[in-house]
Order: sequence, then C-alpha cells, then structure tokens
Amino acid sequence: MEKKWEAMEALFTPRAVAVIGASDNPGKLGSHVMRSLTEGKYPGRIYPVNPGKSEMFGMKAYPSLFQIPETVDLSVIVLPAEQVPKTVTECGEKGVKGIVLITAGFKEIENQKGQALQSEVTKLADQFGIKIIGPNTFGVVNLHLPLNASFTPEFSRVDKGGISLVSQSGGMSHLIGFLSLQNKVGLSKIIGLGNRCNVDFAEMVEYLIQDSQTKVIAMYLEGIDQPKKLMEAAGRGKGEKPILAYKVGRSPTSDQASRFHTGSLAGKHEVYEGAFKQAGILTVGSSEELLDAAKALTLCPLPGGNRVAVLSGQAGPGMAACDICEMERLAISPFSAETQKRVEELLPPLAIRTNPVDMGPAWYDSEAIKGIVKTVLEDRKIDAVVLCVMFASANRSAARVLTDLLLERRPNKPILCCFSSPPGIWDDEVKQLEGSGIPNYPTPERAAKALSTLYRLTKRRVRPG
Amino acid sequence: MEKKWEAMEALFTPRAVAVIGASDNPGKLGSHVMRSLTEGKYPGRIYPVNPGKSEMFGMKAYPSLFQIPETVDLSVIVLPAEQVPKTVTECGEKGVKGIVLITAGFKEIENQKGQALQSEVTKLADQFGIKIIGPNTFGVVNLHLPLNASFTPEFSRVDKGGISLVSQSGGMSHLIGFLSLQNKVGLSKIIGLGNRCNVDFAEMVEYLIQDSQTKVIAMYLEGIDQPKKLMEAAGRGKGEKPILAYKVGRSPTSDQASRFHTGSLAGKHEVYEGAFKQAGILTVGSSEELLDAAKALTLCPLPGGNRVAVLSGQAGPGMAACDICEMERLAISPFSAETQKRVEELLPPLAIRTNPVDMGPAWYDSEAIKGIVKTVLEDRKIDAVVLCVMFASANRSAARVLTDLLLERRPNKPILCCFSSPPGIWDDEVKQLEGSGIPNYPTPERAAKALSTLYRLTKRRVRPG
Repeated sequence: MEKKWEAMEALFTPRAVAVIGASDNPGKLGSHVMRSLTEGKYPGRIYPVNPGKSEMFGMKAYPSLFQIPETVDLSVIVLPAEQVPKTVTECGEKGVKGIVLITAGFKEIENQKGQALQSEVTKLADQFGIKIIGPNTFGVVNLHLPLNASFTPEFSRVDKGGISLVSQSGGMSHLIGFLSLQNKVGLSKIIGLGNRCNVDFAEMVEYLIQDSQTKVIAMYLEGIDQPKKLMEAAGRGKGEKPILAYKVGRSPTSDQASRFHTGSLAGKHEVYEGAFKQAGILTVGSSEELLDAAKALTLCPLPGGNRVAVLSGQAGPGMAACDICEMERLAISPFSAETQKRVEELLPPLAIRTNPVDMGPAWYDSEAIKGIVKTVLEDRKIDAVVLCVMFASANRSAARVLTDLLLERRPNKPILCCFSSPPGIWDDEVKQLEGSGIPNYPTPERAAKALSTLYRLTKRRVRPG
Repeated sequence: MEKKWEAMEALFTPRAVAVIGASDNPGKLGSHVMRSLTEGKYPGRIYPVNPGKSEMFGMKAYPSLFQIPETVDLSVIVLPAEQVPKTVTECGEKGVKGIVLITAGFKEIENQKGQALQSEVTKLADQFGIKIIGPNTFGVVNLHLPLNASFTPEFSRVDKGGISLVSQSGGMSHLIGFLSLQNKVGLSKIIGLGNRCNVDFAEMVEYLIQDSQTKVIAMYLEGIDQPKKLMEAAGRGKGEKPILAYKVGRSPTSDQASRFHTGSLAGKHEVYEGAFKQAGILTVGSSEELLDAAKALTLCPLPGGNRVAVLSGQAGPGMAACDICEMERLAISPFSAETQKRVEELLPPLAIRTNPVDMGPAWYDSEAIKGIVKTVLEDRKIDAVVLCVMFASANRSAARVLTDLLLERRPNKPILCCFSSPPGIWDDEVKQLEGSGIPNYPTPERAAKALSTLYRLTKRRVRPG
C-alpha cells in the first residue's frame, strides 16, 4: 500500500485509537469523543490520554502517548490550540498515521496567529507523513467498522450504507446525519473536513473513489482553496462512482460568509458550477435533495434513457410527479402498443389509462394492479418508473402486493416509489423495498426529482464533459 | 343564517349524520366511513342506513332514511352510482342539508352516462337546496368538531389546527394529511372536492374565509371549470385570510392528465398563475412547500419588510438559509450599529459576527447566545429571523435555553426555526415553540422558503394586485 493510502486508511480503519485530551467531565468535548468511541462499539483498542487521570470510562488512562504499550494508528486531539504543534510532533514520534484534530482556533479565526499555527501543524504533519482531518472539525465516522471518532455519539445510530458524506461544515454534517436517521438512509462515512490542513476535498474524493464501502460521494462545500485539484481528482474517477455536490454561497451574502467561515476563497458560484460539470460532479440545491439523490444513486441502476412511466394509485400524486419530471427534462413517454393494450384490458374506463396511469379505480383488484406494474416494468420503451401509492384503510394491502411483486421482479431499470401512509403502517414494506434497491420518498415530487439526478448521470456517461 | 350557509354548515358541523350504504364488511367503503365516524369520536348522532341490517358497530341500523327518528343534517352516500339520484331525492324529502357523495362513476368516466348522471344529481340537489361534496371523493373532515366523514379513519389522528386543506385529489389530500401527521402540523378541515356537483373551489373558499376555525386556506388544484368564480371569491376576502394554491399541470402531460382525471378543462398554467396573483392567492411548487408555507402563515405574524437576520449555531446551515433567502428576494440585511456592537461584545472573534451570525464558538456560553438572539430580535432594522441550531451532545441544552428565551420574548416579528436533532431529543422544545407561534422546519432551506412566502403576502398587502 502506498504510504498516502496507509495514512488515509488509518483515519477510517485504525486498529488502535488514542484520545488526547480525553475527559470524563461531560462539560468537555473530550468526554463526548470518549462516549462516541465506546458507545459506538468501536472494535479496536481505545487509549484515553490525560496526564491528570489514571482511569476513565472503565479503562486505563495514560499520562502521555508514549506510555501506550502498542502502535497507535489514529489520534483524536481535543486540546487547546497552542498545545497542538507539540502533540502532533509526539504523534509523529509514536508512529501515529492519522489525526482527527477537533480543536478550533486555527485558520478560521480573524487574526494571523491562527493561520500561522495551522501552517506549523500542517508542516509537522507532512514531515511525519501524517494525514490530519481538521482542525475545527467534529470528527470522522465510519459506520462500517464501526468507528465514531467524533464529538457526537448519536452519529452511531445512523444505519450503515453506501453514501459517504464529506462536508466542510460540522453543522451541515449534523443536519444531514439527522435527516439520514429520520429517513433511515444508510451512510458509509461522515467526514468533517473542517479547515483542512493536509486533507482537502481532493484527497478525500481520491480516497473514497477507491473505497469499496463507498457507493456514492456526497459533498457539502462552502468554498475551497484548490478547486482544480478537486475537479482533477473527481475527473480521474471517470464518473464510475457518482459524486454529488451541494455548494452554498450561491447568493452574495452567503458567499461572503463562507470566506469568513472557512478562511478560504469562495468565489463565484457559476465558476464552480462549470467546473463541477466538467468534472462529472452532479450539483444539487438543498440538503434534502443531496440526501435524496444520494439515496437513489446508491440503490438504483441508472436509467438507459429519459422515458419515464408514472404509475399512481391516485391521479393527483401522479400528476405532481409528472410535473417535476417534465420540468427536469424527463419525458412522460407513451407506452408501447402492447403495454397500452394490456393496461386498457386491466383498468376500467374510470381511470387515466395512458401514462401517467391512475390505477385508483382498480384497487379492489390486486391482480389488475400487479398486471399493470409488471407490464410497464417490462416495456422496452420505458427507462424508469415512478410508483406512487397513498394509503387508505381500504387499500392497506396495496403496499404489500406491490412490494412482493417488485421484490420478485427487480428489473434492471430504476423504480422510485412514494408509498405514503400514517406513521408506522407501511414501514415494513418500505424497509423491504429499500433493502432491495428500490428507494422510497416522502413525496412524489422528491421521488421525481431524485430520478432526474439519476438521469443526469446517464447523460454524463453517454456524453462526458 | 342564509340558506346557503346553513347547507355548508351542515357539511362541517352536523348534529346528526346518516351513512347511506353503511356496512360492517371491511371489504366495503361503507365500513370505513362507519369507522371514521365512530373512531373519530364524532359527538353527534350516527345513523347507519342499510336495508339488510338491523345493527352494526353496536348501534341500530335503519332500513331507510325515513325510519330515522330525527332530522338528519348530513348524509354520507356510499352506494352504487345508479342508486344516487333516488337517494338524493330521499335526502331532500327528509330535510338533509349536506351530502358527502363518496361514490365514483360520474363526470370523471370516459363515457356520456357518468356526465348525465352527475347533471341529474346536481339538479336534484339544487332543487332541495342541498350542498354536495363529491362525487368521487374520500369525504370531509372537521378536526375541530371532530367529524371524520371520510373513508379514512386515520385522518382523525391529525392534530387540530388552523389550516384548511381543499383538494381536488383524494390522493393529494391523503399525502398532505400524512405529512401533517409526520410533522405534527395541525389542520382545521380536510376537504376532498372530488368532481364537484355544486360545491366548487369558489363556494368552499367563500365559506372558509368566514370560518373562524380556518386561519389559512391551502388548495390543491388540477384544473377547474370556473376559475373566474374562484378568483372573485378569493378577491372578496381582500387577502385578510391567506390563501395558498398548489396547482399541478405545469407540464403538458400532467395538464392533459388533469383533464382526464377531473373531467374539467385544465388550461395553461400561466393563465392560472396570473389569475392567482390578481386574486391575492399565493402559489407554491410542491406538496411539502404547501404545508410548510401554510404552517408559517398559521403561526407567524407577517414581516414588516424583507430584512432578514440569520442566526445559526453553526455557520453552514446559516449559509444554506441565506442562499434561499436571497434567491427568494429577501435581504440578509446589516444590523443596526448598536446591535452590531453588542454582537461583537458577545461573540469571540472565532465567529462570523455579522449577519448571518455564526454563534457556534459561543455555545459554551448560553448567556452570550441569549444576548445575541435577544438583541437581534429587538433590532428595528430586522423584520424577520431565521434561527438554526443543530444538536450536538455538547450543546444539548441549546434548544432549551433558546426556547425559554423565545417564549418569554415573543416579539411581533416572524421567527422561523430549524432546530435539528436525532429523533426524540428536542421534541418538547419544538412542540413548545410551535405552540407559541414559532414554526420549526426540518431544514434551514425549508424555513427560509416558508419565510419567503410570508413576505410575499406582506408585499401583496402593501401593493395589492
């Protein structure tokens, strides 16, 4: 393994972790980091380092790194900024390969001192070949190990999945992490880059492209110093692993705020937009859209083209999905003649029997519903399906019937669902669908929007650049 | 009371309801209607009508309407279409004032027969002065009585509140009803207009404008026959009660589908947009946006102008809110000199201390946070506040501190929050805030978007038309 990869691996799959500045005082961040590691069931060895303590969290504490009886791969540092350079040197001498530097007070502050401190730390880390996440970060989480090297123990509650979230903002990582929890979306890694000593978006994207547990890279950016490096790293991936970007600073005030916040040049949004497109990075416009699109990209095959069928248990939600599809340049396309004939055989004349199909008047007849969905899934003139079903107590079994059909069929085209019910009623069906590569969304509009991002990736692959 | 109002009142506040076609067979819609009324704790008298039964749901069943020993205000009809004209006549003779006509198979079907049947039913109802909701509807719900005269018992679980939802689509009503349940948004009435015999959007808006339990009217439309009548009804309200419209059919396919579905002309979306604007109706672009905006309009005072302060516990979510504000033509405005001075006293130089304020580095200091929020709330150069706080285990008390401050202050300007935490952690604080007129949203972007709709109403009132 290249030395660079070794250091990056140490950040995500360490065999032993030291917490320098560990604490059992709940008022200190060091105690939250200890809770994250212990409650998060990290399977490696944990070494709290604190000269004033001989024990905490039921384990031996060490006065310094050098007393630890084995090699430490990763140090999480939660010390005041002025103690950091000395500590990084000690880490280097101990053979530590990765550091999560939670401490703030570096490049992000308004004076020169912080900038100088950050340069010093970066230089030391580079000398020792150490990779640093941070400073000014909540940390990193690898849900697959699991490793929660952050000050937020609750991140361990997130399901493990294929989306790696790389963020310049701790707040945004927390927001998207909590949205993942609420919507039961699985994540692979949650990475707060903070003020980026020597691990910037470029290095992280390069690493995640070759990480087998990452299916989709979802980035949140404010402004970066070396956009070109990121675009090159993304471009080298040849679009084989989808990369999404949600960049704020689209408005003048927010752009200026991002300069303050991250200590780096933000720069015109249009410039970024163009560069993202060149590099094959798909942009999105909100935190929810980032997660919705990432979920679709993790679960679904890509559509072969833009011809969408909208099948809905009720006409209204189907129309709402159509609106978004067509606004996003997807085509609500006519069925093949055979499909159309079959749909007309199965549906009474009460219903809209062309695309978008209103299956409502046939709910009493689950064989008809299954027949329609099956026929449309097999139609070679249809590239993707949006399937909407709203619960009513008279059609409670609809989700079950359709879930069984979809799990049995699993055609090689994307199916995005909006199965909506009062909390708790269709949870099992939705879980089964998502477990089998069929994402569910809270509204038809969000399902359609996520599909449009899938199709944008199809287009990129056909005509890159 | 005018006769017209009397009939409309009968739809929402009946003293006695007959269910014609009541059933205790769970395969029949008539049984779901019975469950809605009984499980929904309707406080009036319920009379199941079914010639084949003498008892159901523990109550006496009647062979016909005429055997019921008192006046019936509302009939819910769940019979085959061909029996409906006779039944409407019987209702007229019995003195029934309102009918919820759940039966489908009228104007929405592809042949002439349904159209003729609907004309006949309408004529009969008009002769007797009966108002009909439907046909082809799930029903109506008045959460304040409570009355659940629909085939969906689960609607009774929705909290009561100030938003009345008027929808042309049963599916969309269910979707938005379930979103309300998930997000704990209170509704006043849920009305499925169906294919509209003699109660169209115009009549319903006219009624809801004078209904004291309706604070905001939220409409979902596909296409209507008499848009002018609706616009006049809305215009007569002089914008005193906010009216929102989510109209699908923005895309060609969806527009065409709505003609099939509702049997009415849909027509160019731009024409509707213009007419809505003229009538003071605020348009929105999705089901979630409809509910988000309705919630803000129900809870918040209107902003006096477009000068917004964004205060955030973390910089990233604050910037995301700024982006949406500025894209929606709200201004992220400089603070007054005194406010700016005070913020600089309270916040360390680690933070962004101008609008949008990043309060992150002062989380250890709840007095500082309170001081900042208090000062900005009182700034006369600020018309509205977006307040974002992402949970971390080290700032668990933040929501409590801010909630207490906001409940104590309640300034007469809108405050829209995004307090985000893992499920269950900040539920009490959010509930208290929303109970006191401060809405909470799942993301900063959605909070900012809802604020933009509040401001659109401010503008309409200053410069109508």
